[in-house]
Amino acid sequence: MADSYVKVLGTWASPFVMRVTVALHLKSVDYEYIEENLLESKSDLLLKSNPVHKKVPVFIHGDKPVCESLIIVQYIDEVWSSSSSPSILHSDPYERADSRFWAAYVDDKFFPALRRVLFSTTEEAAKEATAEVLEGVVVLEEAFKKLSKGKAFFGGDNLGYVDLAVGCLLAWIKVIEELTEAKVLSEAKTPSLVAWADCFSSHAAVKDVFPDVDKLADFGMKFKAKALNAAAAATID
Amino acid sequence: MADSYVKVLGTWASPFVMRVTVALHLKSVDYEYIEENLLESKSDLLLKSNPVHKKVPVFIHGDKPVCESLIIVQYIDEVWSSSSSPSILHSDPYERADSRFWAAYVDDKFFPALRRVLFSTTEEAAKEATAEVLEGVVVLEEAFKKLSKGKAFFGGDNLGYVDLAVGCLLAWIKVIEELTEAKVLSEAKTPSLVAWADCFSSHAAVKDVFPDVDKLADFGMKFKAKALNAAAAATID
Repeated sequence: MADSYVKVLGTWASPFVMRVTVALHLKSVDYEYIEENLLESKSDLLLKSNPVHKKVPVFIHGDKPVCESLIIVQYIDEVWSSSSSPSILHSDPYERADSRFWAAYVDDKFFPALRRVLFSTTEEAAKEATAEVLEGVVVLEEAFKKLSKGKAFFGGDNLGYVDLAVGCLLAWIKVIEELTEAKVLSEAKTPSLVAWADCFSSHAAVKDVFPDVDKLADFGMKFKAKALNAAAAATID
Repeated sequence: MADSYVKVLGTWASPFVMRVTVALHLKSVDYEYIEENLLESKSDLLLKSNPVHKKVPVFIHGDKPVCESLIIVQYIDEVWSSSSSPSILHSDPYERADSRFWAAYVDDKFFPALRRVLFSTTEEAAKEATAEVLEGVVVLEEAFKKLSKGKAFFGGDNLGYVDLAVGCLLAWIKVIEELTEAKVLSEAKTPSLVAWADCFSSHAAVKDVFPDVDKLADFGMKFKAKALNAAAAATID
């Protein structure tokens, strides 16, 4: 059916794109994946489908584009609600609100700090960001204990909305652990998240799209060098 | 019923708090409003209910707190779904996604620029922010034409999610027009939004909580003076 044809415009290193592909795997939805090269030029389809932000992921259902990873995940959950797989968001309004709160925490607070660890142009800024990330995972450890109720996932027995929001950042957390001296997740401070990270990355919907950490670290270093060069150039101009 | 008792912790000048009170009016839900004085000290109830962000609005339903204005609005819409008033979000998943996209645009792009017009510590930064706001309203004018389908509101015939997201910023837009030379909404560039702003601010659910623009401008100027003093102090330290 033409109007149910699904395309995802993405880039392999993006945790936000991964949220969408994992959600589609959870719902057993077939899709066409189109890799965008954002460092070179963006495709006409991307610019036409997301003219406001010009960013991936873009999800195209038939001829209708949906943008912003968490909005796409909710769309997928609502459209494929009669799927045999469990819902990504709980049915209870309070649990839904709580999941949305923690997903927003990840995007508004945790991810920006994670990004600054890698891409800050001064050592001091990177150090501050690392401290924020280490505080953030302790906050998320407590959130996990509350939301999971002793089960394997933030979503309880099943991988859910907050799992997607946090879990798709795991590969980048590993990159930070490789490139810096910071131990972000540890048995000492975040034992629940350590166990959860194993469950998440070995989940059937995740394991085939979990990016290679060495390849991601290499990409991260190149990206950082580019950011540092840009900063150096700015001081010359 | 004790578990359905509703409290809102807010502050009168916050557009985010207004989103929540208007949503409650739309659903005809009784609530207790508790004014927080964020410039003095935050209440224990606020700190206990929103320990992560320590911000208003906080919505307390029975003994359960919900934080973040757009998450609260969705919670209200889901809990009071059988109310005789129309849904705040459409039932169609694509229209819901589109509404969420534009509400996120307001919070992630438009509001930060609006805030910087008032609270930037340099004239250059304020000028840049004003240009961003003027671009933003043109983007929102186009979004209005698409979403409203010729009707009075972003939500169509009824005041909906995007109306709440944008509309509760209207009083602050008027403050900017009072304090600066910028004409943010105009018949020339945003005729649909000019007409919509009248519909929004005179709506039964809105008119009693639409803040007094002069009082808000006075608050804005004091807040700005405080920001400028803080910046001046920072250059001395």
